[in-house]
Amino acid sequence: MSLPVSPLAPEKFPDLPEISGIRFATANSGMRYKGRDDLMLAVMDKGTTAAGVFTKNTMPGAPVDWGRKILSKGSARALVVNSGIANVFTGAAGVKTVEETASKTAELVGSSEYEVYIASTGVIGEVIPTEYVTNTLPGMIDGLSSHNSQKAANAILTTDTFAKGASGICQIGDQTVTISGFAKGSGMIAPDMATMLAFVFTDASIPAPVLQQILSEENERSFNCVTVDSDTSTSDSVLLFASGSANNKAPADANDSALLDFRAALLAVMQDLAKQIAKDGEGASKFITVNVTGAQSDVAAKTIALAIANSPLVKTAIAGEDANWGRVIMAVGKSGEKADRDKIALKICGVQITKDGAPDPEYKEEQVAPLMKEKDITIDVDVAVGNGKSHAWTCDLTHGYIEINADYRS
Amino acid sequence: MSLPVSPLAPEKFPDLPEISGIRFATANSGMRYKGRDDLMLAVMDKGTTAAGVFTKNTMPGAPVDWGRKILSKGSARALVVNSGIANVFTGAAGVKTVEETASKTAELVGSSEYEVYIASTGVIGEVIPTEYVTNTLPGMIDGLSSHNSQKAANAILTTDTFAKGASGICQIGDQTVTISGFAKGSGMIAPDMATMLAFVFTDASIPAPVLQQILSEENERSFNCVTVDSDTSTSDSVLLFASGSANNKAPADANDSALLDFRAALLAVMQDLAKQIAKDGEGASKFITVNVTGAQSDVAAKTIALAIANSPLVKTAIAGEDANWGRVIMAVGKSGEKADRDKIALKICGVQITKDGAPDPEYKEEQVAPLMKEKDITIDVDVAVGNGKSHAWTCDLTHGYIEINADYRS
Repeated sequence: MSLPVSPLAPEKFPDLPEISGIRFATANSGMRYKGRDDLMLAVMDKGTTAAGVFTKNTMPGAPVDWGRKILSKGSARALVVNSGIANVFTGAAGVKTVEETASKTAELVGSSEYEVYIASTGVIGEVIPTEYVTNTLPGMIDGLSSHNSQKAANAILTTDTFAKGASGICQIGDQTVTISGFAKGSGMIAPDMATMLAFVFTDASIPAPVLQQILSEENERSFNCVTVDSDTSTSDSVLLFASGSANNKAPADANDSALLDFRAALLAVMQDLAKQIAKDGEGASKFITVNVTGAQSDVAAKTIALAIANSPLVKTAIAGEDANWGRVIMAVGKSGEKADRDKIALKICGVQITKDGAPDPEYKEEQVAPLMKEKDITIDVDVAVGNGKSHAWTCDLTHGYIEINADYRS
Repeated sequence: MSLPVSPLAPEKFPDLPEISGIRFATANSGMRYKGRDDLMLAVMDKGTTAAGVFTKNTMPGAPVDWGRKILSKGSARALVVNSGIANVFTGAAGVKTVEETASKTAELVGSSEYEVYIASTGVIGEVIPTEYVTNTLPGMIDGLSSHNSQKAANAILTTDTFAKGASGICQIGDQTVTISGFAKGSGMIAPDMATMLAFVFTDASIPAPVLQQILSEENERSFNCVTVDSDTSTSDSVLLFASGSANNKAPADANDSALLDFRAALLAVMQDLAKQIAKDGEGASKFITVNVTGAQSDVAAKTIALAIANSPLVKTAIAGEDANWGRVIMAVGKSGEKADRDKIALKICGVQITKDGAPDPEYKEEQVAPLMKEKDITIDVDVAVGNGKSHAWTCDLTHGYIEINADYRS
């Protein structure tokens, strides 16, 4: 199935900076897709630290189990990603695929197999014929280059209609540090989890425990705020690798003030990638930002934001360019979080719609109607019970979603 | 917008038996719909007891607030239902509409206003011009008849494509008792709540507190097991009225063995109506039953069943007649409830698909493919950690849902 590129896609893939100590290669393994690369190998220099967050789905794929297991070591030398088959719910055969892939890669790059991260995405319940991977990997070594991040970003895609990349430059102490990442994801994208495949690389020197804490915290404010369809994948993984080539002074802990600039730059990269996932949501025609304020806590605000962002009725109304704001009120109410019905203030695309628990007498639908035709839709809700705030990003629900998912396997 | 009748609709509306002591009338109020009745009045004899369950959405409509308030009195003389405008998020104006409607009805039937139940369904955020109701009610009194239940079932519909009725006959002690009910609901139908509008009538003589306990318990096994789109309405109400005309010996409590037959008959009526709501789910082309066994508890089993029934990916796959069972596994995993990945047993339409945490070696897709073309689809999942069991009913997710909801207000 060939899909048209999302109307929300960026004009072009960004020029991702090279990260010293990190090289990429891609190839076509032949396991499922024809005429495109479906295998990606990243090789990292010795001394690279790793951090990761994974799906909370209790049916994780074998690569997720593997990643969780090796993450305690904190170091990384390689990352192998295939698209087309997710290696999920494959029992002992799936475990064997992962172990053989790690073993072969470790042999090729001269590392321990516990330094080889693996991610797979595609159909659930099919076993990867391991030889497609292990026979293809040796030929990829010669092609490794720090220039290849765009190729790498393309090789990991499934129903995505565009490759997603983002980068940033920042300071740690006196040292300039670079961050570069790419992600994939379009359907089976859901909240409150480490969402989909995203790989972020930096030349910063940061010990693994510090890197892990930073990743977990920034993940809450980026990938965990995006949803396409409320369905949480069994393969979601976000991995962050730090090669150390920048030789900055190692930070003491995650709250070291020398890391403020780095954390801001990392969050910007992760949020950029997260938004691109929503913009490539299956069938998306509108990008939707939901901002919630006045909740009992930040956690409560996020629950409300995601209840709105996951509501099929809100999403279909926006697809129809209809400011059907009553459905937003319904979604606030179904979230179960505290909200003051008689004080809620709701804006759509900046237009004030409700006041004191009823439609604002000044509001006229003509004010918001032309704004609903834009590609970027913003919903601001103040629920008037506290100071908690959060946000969510999603897309609308269109015929495209049905078309893609009613015949994805065929 | 005129919708084609659901392919899952029953051949015809059932012949609902008359309930002694309960009479119905319908009329067109002119408030929104043209050419069809949109106002329903039920009048009950003195001595009728009432029970109700309402939406858990925290943004309830004014009629729900009113119902909760008067339910403690436990007696009922009238029920007024309008379709077209939901009287939700309408502030003081909405409260006034409810109070004036109750007051006018009480005057007409000679009761207290606290014996007048009200339900409204339709667009959120619009105020009902009360005079459309209060000016229409007086002319309906002469038309009241116990024969009018089909007209009543039709008058309460919105995006429904068929009227939903069910009935049963049972014994309480030596006395034969009749139960008859109707419901509406097609979109904004979600789990774990008293779902949508359903009105059930019986000539049984049952004290209000006993009636309430029975309704709450049977509701968990009927309306609270149905979902169309995971969106919980702000108006959901299930009301049960018992006129007492059958003159059975009054039961001592809800667990009185004399009530066993009545409870079974009531549950059958409520489940029948609940399934009809799923069969009229917006855009439905398949009726889906999800049975979960082997969970840690019945509550856990229901959470898993609803996670499957609410998954857009499961629902679109079934719309595409694709036994994409990996998505069912994903949905079990995203539910958060305990399940043994390596022992899960999954059947679709009776065909065994997984065994020991991997595809059953005997399974061939050709076995299930022809069954996916049927209108009734069954998913059986045993999660292999306990004895909890539950079920959910839903429909598939098709282009019809998008069409209906992208331009419902226009």
